[in-house]
This record gives sequence, structure tokens and C-alpha cells, in this order.
Amino acid sequence: MLIGKTANTNAQWLSERITKLGGEVTRVTIVGDDIRIIGSVLREILRRRPDIAITSGGLGPTFDDKTLQAFSKAFKRPLQISRSALRLVKSKYRRILEGNTQLTPPRLKMATFPLGAKAIPNPVGTAPAVTLRQKGVRFIVLPGVPAELQSIFGQSFESLIRRLSRTQYFYETSLIVWSLLESQLAPMIGRVMEHIPGVYIKSHAKGGEGTEEGNIELHFSAKAAKLKLSRKRILKALTLMSELLGRSMPDNRHPRAGVP
Amino acid sequence: MLIGKTANTNAQWLSERITKLGGEVTRVTIVGDDIRIIGSVLREILRRRPDIAITSGGLGPTFDDKTLQAFSKAFKRPLQISRSALRLVKSKYRRILEGNTQLTPPRLKMATFPLGAKAIPNPVGTAPAVTLRQKGVRFIVLPGVPAELQSIFGQSFESLIRRLSRTQYFYETSLIVWSLLESQLAPMIGRVMEHIPGVYIKSHAKGGEGTEEGNIELHFSAKAAKLKLSRKRILKALTLMSELLGRSMPDNRHPRAGVP
Repeated sequence: MLIGKTANTNAQWLSERITKLGGEVTRVTIVGDDIRIIGSVLREILRRRPDIAITSGGLGPTFDDKTLQAFSKAFKRPLQISRSALRLVKSKYRRILEGNTQLTPPRLKMATFPLGAKAIPNPVGTAPAVTLRQKGVRFIVLPGVPAELQSIFGQSFESLIRRLSRTQYFYETSLIVWSLLESQLAPMIGRVMEHIPGVYIKSHAKGGEGTEEGNIELHFSAKAAKLKLSRKRILKALTLMSELLGRSMPDNRHPRAGVP
Repeated sequence: MLIGKTANTNAQWLSERITKLGGEVTRVTIVGDDIRIIGSVLREILRRRPDIAITSGGLGPTFDDKTLQAFSKAFKRPLQISRSALRLVKSKYRRILEGNTQLTPPRLKMATFPLGAKAIPNPVGTAPAVTLRQKGVRFIVLPGVPAELQSIFGQSFESLIRRLSRTQYFYETSLIVWSLLESQLAPMIGRVMEHIPGVYIKSHAKGGEGTEEGNIELHFSAKAAKLKLSRKRILKALTLMSELLGRSMPDNRHPRAGVP
């Protein structure tokens, strides 16, 4: 990922799912296959004390898979074969290989966990996922293959995140505005956010500013204890923004705006 | 980005360019529009002392653009109007608007820089880019709109990165392997890396392990002072890997392998 070969689709997928479940993603960090660097990120996470930290990648059988070694070193938990992980790995190879189910070192590696870590079944791939708790932070350690990550997350962690996020509902919509510049929209955005608390409006300039194809996407989002309430706030904000957009044109031409 | 709405194409694009220029990306961090959190990431960067740190986004006219305020607070550099930035912003509006070139507060905001920061022209958009140095780290502060980021990076920073990376050349290629599992490839990868120093082999499992569509991508990369040398190492590694793959099949069927 740090050589630009692969897009970070896992971070985007997880961020979207967690937000929809009412959670809030505060930080994403990408580092390479380096035990020392991964370890220093893990210790930084402990200092920030999030409810949950999710890692992805580095659980496979090859030498470049170093996540569990990094956990072991950073949290001073010795590595040892996890019996439940070993059972999962064995049964996987029994299913996909006939005869060749020998527990070679690369296969044992996938069941070698830091002390106290728990194995979570991987319905798609071979390496089990892992959970462990350190200083009150729940670590969810997922494989990097997107199909595996998504299946394990859906099966084993969505309900946990829904529960921890205390049923906050997230609602979002976008409005595309042509024929105005971002600097002209700025004071209107400020007024709408002032008048309708709980609504967040983020502007994204697309194309070239001031050109024919140039436009601004205004992304409205709100969170509330009820989905209806967050939706209501967004609709109010959209209405007020449309009014301000209409008034902004001296000659009563309404600026072009629409839903993407 | 932290709600999963937008893919982090800027991080991928920059990582690819920097790697091709011989540089090494060690970490990517994504945070939200929060002055305190951005500031704490900036201070973490100072502790790690990279040659260069690049930020993207948060330079525009709207309230959610907070990058320069975060720099000001984190590095205790008061904000002030930069005369050269103001000149750039003014000339931009002169070009794209007729008559409406008034320096409103949102427009002045794009020229309000932390003390000591330098303005860099933005050939595509309005907000100038910024450079500043803090404790030996060169900060390159780019806008978030991809077309603007790419144009400024190409025009103003590629030669700097090429110079700082002391003309290291990067060469990469991939080999796709079917009909073997990652756990079977692991010892071969180890042997190739042992025999040919300077080559890094990373495995990426695709599809489902052990299924018809399942395959493993082996990504070979090397860096050297001469492009020829890094290329030579990769070819050696490919040759040895092919040999090992051939030997791995007991019945002389060569495992299916190919270039993507």
C-alpha cells in the first residue's frame, strides 16, 4: 500500500460500515511490514484510548505477515500456539486439500498468538482473526484480504459496534452546486450550520473552479438517537441552503443545484 | 474519508510517485477536520523526524478547512496574511470572475498562513499550497482536490524528492501463481529472499484459497543505485522462484504461473 500499488479499500469499507452502525472513526494509519513500526502504532493507540481498534493484514503464513509478532512485542505477551486457532487452521486444510494437511511451520504460524488472544473463525480464508484487550482497548485483528475481512466483520463484530455506539443513527445526503465558487458558498454553509445544530456540511470542489465543468459537492450529515430525527435535520438544512442559494443571485436566476 | 464516502486516492497517488522517484513512504495517517487531532499528528511527525511530511486537504475557503490553523497552533506560529499568497489568490479571482474579485473573509482565509510559511502557486485551483520547516522536517502542505495536488506536486516537488532520495531506483514486477497455497509458497519466498539480497517479495492472496479462481500474487520489488541493477536482481529472483515452483510439483506438472 505504501508503494501505491494497492488502494486502501479496507479502510474505506470499514469506515463506511462503522459510520452506518453509529460508530465514529477517528483515525486511520497505514504502515509497512515492520514489527517495530507496527508496535509503535499499537502503543500510540493505547495512549489515545479508543473503545475499539481494528487492524487489517499481516495474519498469513508468509514472512511479511508480522502483525501478531508486533502485538507480542509491543504488549509484552509471549507468542504461543493457540489451541482453538490450531483447530480452525487444521479443519480448513482438511477441507481444501486432500492428503496435504501437514502442519508445516508456515501453517503453525497462523495459529501462533500473543498470550491471551482469542481466535475468531474465518469463513472465507485460512488465517483466523484475533481479538485481544489491552488497557481497556478492544483490538480486532482482521486479515487483509477484503472478502475475508468483510465476512468476519459482518459475522462477528457488527453487533458489538452497534451496541457500543449506543444506537446513534447516521443520515447523509449531497447537493451539487454549479455556477458558484466555494468562497461564495462558505458564508452560507456557516449560516446553515449555525441555524441547524447537529448538521455537518462539508464542501468538496470538483473539476476546475470557475470553469464550465467545475462544481461543488455539499455533503450534509447528521447523527441522532433516532434515524427520523437525523433525517429531519438534514431536510431542514437542505431547505435553508436552497433559500440562501436562491437569494445569492442578484438577477433571480437560481444557481444550478441538484442531487448527485 | 473517515465516513467511507471518499477513497484515499491522494495517498495512493503520492505513494506511487514518491516510490518511483526513489523515496520511501513510511506512514500514512488520515484524520478528520479537527484542529486538536491534526495538531497532535503534526507533533508526532516531529518526533519521528522524516525528511519530508506531506499533508493534503484543508486549505480551502470553508470552515471545515483547518489545516493551517492546526499548523499554527501545533507549532506556535501565529497566523497572518501572507503577501505572496494574497497576490496568488487575487490574480486567480481576477482570471475566473469578472467584477466579483472582492477579498471576502473566506478568500482572505486562503492567504492566512502560519508565520514563516511560504506560498506555492496552484496552477489548477485557487488555494495556494504551502511549505514550512519545523525542527528539520520539511512540510509540504497540498490541497485535497486531486487535480490540484497532482499538478502542484509535479511542478514544485518532484525534483526535490528525487534529489533527497539520492537517486535510488525502484523496479517491480508480479508473478501470479495458481494451484499452490500461500502456506506452500512461504518457504520458497524465504529461500529466494535469502539467496538474492535486496529483493522484497510480498504475497497477496486473491479469490478464495484452494478454489478454482483462487490465486496468489507474488510482488517482487528492489531498489538500487542503478535502475539496471534493481532490474537484474528482480530477474534473478523470478528465475529462482520459477525453478522452485517447478520442483514443488511431485509429478512434474509445473504449477500454473504467469505475469498479470
